[in-house]
Amino acid sequence: MDWFNNLFQKKSRRIFLDYASATPVLREVKRAMEIFESKAFYNPSAIYEEGVWVKKKVEDFRAMVAVLVGAGAKEIIFTGSGTESVNLAILGVFEAFRQVQGERSKDKPHIIISAIEHPAVVKATEEAVRRGAEVSTCRVDEFGVISLEHLKKLIKKNTILVSIGLSNSEIGTVQPISKVGRLLREERKKRNSEYPLLHTDASSAPSYINVNIEALQCDLLTLDGSKIYGPKGVGILATRRGVNLRPIIFGGNQERGMRAGTVSPALIAGFSKALEIALRDREQERTRLESLRQDFIAQVVKALPEAIINGSNEVHCPNIVSMSIPGALSEFLLLKLDKLGVIVSVGSACSYDERESGSPVIAALGKKELRESTLRFSFGRFTTKKDLDEAIKVFVPILNL
Amino acid sequence: MDWFNNLFQKKSRRIFLDYASATPVLREVKRAMEIFESKAFYNPSAIYEEGVWVKKKVEDFRAMVAVLVGAGAKEIIFTGSGTESVNLAILGVFEAFRQVQGERSKDKPHIIISAIEHPAVVKATEEAVRRGAEVSTCRVDEFGVISLEHLKKLIKKNTILVSIGLSNSEIGTVQPISKVGRLLREERKKRNSEYPLLHTDASSAPSYINVNIEALQCDLLTLDGSKIYGPKGVGILATRRGVNLRPIIFGGNQERGMRAGTVSPALIAGFSKALEIALRDREQERTRLESLRQDFIAQVVKALPEAIINGSNEVHCPNIVSMSIPGALSEFLLLKLDKLGVIVSVGSACSYDERESGSPVIAALGKKELRESTLRFSFGRFTTKKDLDEAIKVFVPILNL
Repeated sequence: MDWFNNLFQKKSRRIFLDYASATPVLREVKRAMEIFESKAFYNPSAIYEEGVWVKKKVEDFRAMVAVLVGAGAKEIIFTGSGTESVNLAILGVFEAFRQVQGERSKDKPHIIISAIEHPAVVKATEEAVRRGAEVSTCRVDEFGVISLEHLKKLIKKNTILVSIGLSNSEIGTVQPISKVGRLLREERKKRNSEYPLLHTDASSAPSYINVNIEALQCDLLTLDGSKIYGPKGVGILATRRGVNLRPIIFGGNQERGMRAGTVSPALIAGFSKALEIALRDREQERTRLESLRQDFIAQVVKALPEAIINGSNEVHCPNIVSMSIPGALSEFLLLKLDKLGVIVSVGSACSYDERESGSPVIAALGKKELRESTLRFSFGRFTTKKDLDEAIKVFVPILNL
Repeated sequence: MDWFNNLFQKKSRRIFLDYASATPVLREVKRAMEIFESKAFYNPSAIYEEGVWVKKKVEDFRAMVAVLVGAGAKEIIFTGSGTESVNLAILGVFEAFRQVQGERSKDKPHIIISAIEHPAVVKATEEAVRRGAEVSTCRVDEFGVISLEHLKKLIKKNTILVSIGLSNSEIGTVQPISKVGRLLREERKKRNSEYPLLHTDASSAPSYINVNIEALQCDLLTLDGSKIYGPKGVGILATRRGVNLRPIIFGGNQERGMRAGTVSPALIAGFSKALEIALRDREQERTRLESLRQDFIAQVVKALPEAIINGSNEVHCPNIVSMSIPGALSEFLLLKLDKLGVIVSVGSACSYDERESGSPVIAALGKKELRESTLRFSFGRFTTKKDLDEAIKVFVPILNL
């Protein structure tokens, strides 16, 4: 944080524990991007040698990403963000279904999401409802794990899509996506239909969990560059072969007609390199952060017996600790910690601007009374045991006041 | 082009004359972006000091862009590309109209575009038609200038939007947008309505033409970073106050709810700096390139009397020369020139992948027979008289074979 300390003439060290909201671009990633900014700046749609060279590079990155997520290269669509990918998955599946099959059917196309989805999933689904879909919400238990029993009951003959995040960005809980995938595969067989499809927003997952679409048994997978030490402004939607989509942005024939607009080889290079590094270092980082996480939680609950750790102890991302302090006000705590040099967050940065009162995710766990009393500590590549020990030294006295 | 020559072990110089399809990121622009990639990488939606600092910077850039285009800061929406901005303008106006007023009216919402629009405008309008709009196409004359008489006839009581590009990226013709704006203003007064609105895609214009929305008398303005020596992957839609829009990407509340997804301060910084530089250097570059253009055209028509220069000699961007050679095949010429070190294009890179046969823009000029016999030479910031003289030396002998 030297740049920050210099900027504001602060002397004390800042401890960044909000990696789930943003990650710095790694040096290796930046290097992969640079050539496409000023030297090989050519439009990959151009047919002269330079354009062809850039296009080839873009297709190499696409093929690499395809291998990393277990899809075909033709099934990787580069987008402008995870949010855009989510919109393309939900509205794209809905519109494609309606175009091909919808006119024949009298039932509204039915979409199922979980009770703790990211605002992108919630709002894109609301838009589908406005355009003629209907939606059901699958319950989660107190740990944030979806109820497979409830999901089974929600599936109807007109269900076209289930969209459930792989790991929750606020509480870290990981969902049994492959079980959902198997369930939907059976349903498809029973119906002799290509629907219902399974979309999973895995944006917060790839640094810690397998995001291979075969392993996850999903049909559509969203990833975001900005959560994996890549650049902001790029994501992907990967699909299984044969999944029908309609674009949400129309124009030139880029991305096989699925996402019009001048392709950014720099952003694609950055995303691809970041994903490669995330998967390369996954096991090591998972183990390292899990150990930091357990130690952090142990210290906190010892010093603050009233603290409640949200999420699941069994199925979770190792980089997130969601903590509720009954009676405390999370925003007050956040700003106090900020002043003392510890950077944390309340819930998801995306929903912050519009949240009504506290976190809807915490409320969905059956802890409505804690929705405004919850902080998220999220760790990352540069988090050390020393960071966490110092954070606790700052954090505990505030609450013991 | 040293990187390219080194890469392919070529000894001869390459002359790049396709600036209309892509521009390198300027060093000043890159410098403005860098801090937001690895140092100030924070999510501008976060409420701790670092997040607030980044948010402040983003809002400063927004205010700067707003001044540059004559809009209010609240009326600048940063998007992922010019194409996305165009989609937001056309589908956003259409959906907002339908939501608020459409149910009352029996007529389909009516959209007018010109006969030489970019694929983004054409395809977004086709999508609006699929969703219940109707479209009319305004004729252009042989120089590519829209017919104001025809436009007047096309305006109906249910016309909600007119979308006409400020300058054409294939032939360089500049449209009388402010006259269209005044026409629509009168129509609004007559109807006592906020419709019809005027959108102009000015993506290829800001380096050479005034893009102030007050001067243009337009209601919505699209710009793209990748055409003005900024990064690829960012654009803006600027609007007049009070223009109703519905988003096309749903989720978090970023960009005042008009474009969900993690904001990229790096891309926003890059776009803003690039636009600032474009406007700063506009007069000088316009004059310099106009002189190069006239000299280039004079040399070409002298050496090749059969060559036809498309577009308007009166109202044009100074960086584009569209040239038809009756009987020649443009793709053959392009690849031949490529081999000899001169980089040009056939029409728009965006439409290339999907074009059926040749350029629809050339066909719309009444020159259907030349649609596959046309090359675009486009100049830019680093184009010199020497480049153009050498290009002519390569170009003329090919055609005199």
